[in-house]
Amino acid sequence: MEGAEATRILMGVNESTIKGYPHASISSSGAFDWTIQKIVRSNTSGFKLLFLHVQVPDEDGFDDMDSLYASPEDFKNMKHRNRTRGLHLLEYFVNRCHEIGVACEAWMKKGDPKEVICHEVKRVQPDLLVVGSRGLGPFQRVFVGTVSEFCQKHAECPVISIKRRADETPQDPVDD
Amino acid sequence: MEGAEATRILMGVNESTIKGYPHASISSSGAFDWTIQKIVRSNTSGFKLLFLHVQVPDEDGFDDMDSLYASPEDFKNMKHRNRTRGLHLLEYFVNRCHEIGVACEAWMKKGDPKEVICHEVKRVQPDLLVVGSRGLGPFQRVFVGTVSEFCQKHAECPVISIKRRADETPQDPVDD
Repeated sequence: MEGAEATRILMGVNESTIKGYPHASISSSGAFDWTIQKIVRSNTSGFKLLFLHVQVPDEDGFDDMDSLYASPEDFKNMKHRNRTRGLHLLEYFVNRCHEIGVACEAWMKKGDPKEVICHEVKRVQPDLLVVGSRGLGPFQRVFVGTVSEFCQKHAECPVISIKRRADETPQDPVDD
Repeated sequence: MEGAEATRILMGVNESTIKGYPHASISSSGAFDWTIQKIVRSNTSGFKLLFLHVQVPDEDGFDDMDSLYASPEDFKNMKHRNRTRGLHLLEYFVNRCHEIGVACEAWMKKGDPKEVICHEVKRVQPDLLVVGSRGLGPFQRVFVGTVSEFCQKHAECPVISIKRRADETPQDPVDD
């Protein structure tokens, strides 16, 4: 098994919808922690994490799609004065990977998150897709849709959906 | 991360339905290989695999439920003269784990596989459930049901469903 190519794990990550909550949503952050603790463990050289953040069009005026970030320096060298929340989100995960010592890449796309994630799976062919999920009940799901259910059906690779812990659910469970 | 408790992965495994095909179904065997290659990798001490085989009642006259097997010796010491196919199935996976050097346990239960798997998840609280899937289309699924879809919805832990590779699909895709 030594010398085999690293297991490439694509993670769909998004920003928190809670006002004042910094950067990563509770479910994205939980999915990352779970992946590090339960899958990567001490075997940091065996894995590469790929972070994909999909921004819904017209939510932010953002024109830095399709750039690739692989180290904290990549962010510092950026010309942009206004680092958007999306960039901060990716920076958060890239920084955490560098602290832990696991290789990573991060990028952004625009579009419908569930469609874009499945499209990117087809393009980059990861070994595994990890998505966070709010763990909503059927009634709440009707209104917000769930990216994780769509990806489990349509993504062309194995998918793990990590539900948010019950004790981390905010007052309005649709928030994240 | 060193010294942390091993990640416990529960695998639902079943026998092949193909006449003359030895022991493990194509999808169970594929899910095992995937888990070793992509998740466990060289970090054999970081993981413990738990194999659960659910036998549908009245399919076999089998009375050795609830026994626990953790090494090849456990099988040799058995009093039973007729090793059933179910036992051979578990023996296959336990032997493979011992060759690889990863800790394991295996046991059998009777019942409806999807219900029993979710019940056992609640009881043993694994970190992850891995199930193989035939990757059937919607038309075929109506007739055979899918354990993996049910578990993804109902199991109280993260679930990965590993689809059978297209080039391993037997003549009748409902076979496995």
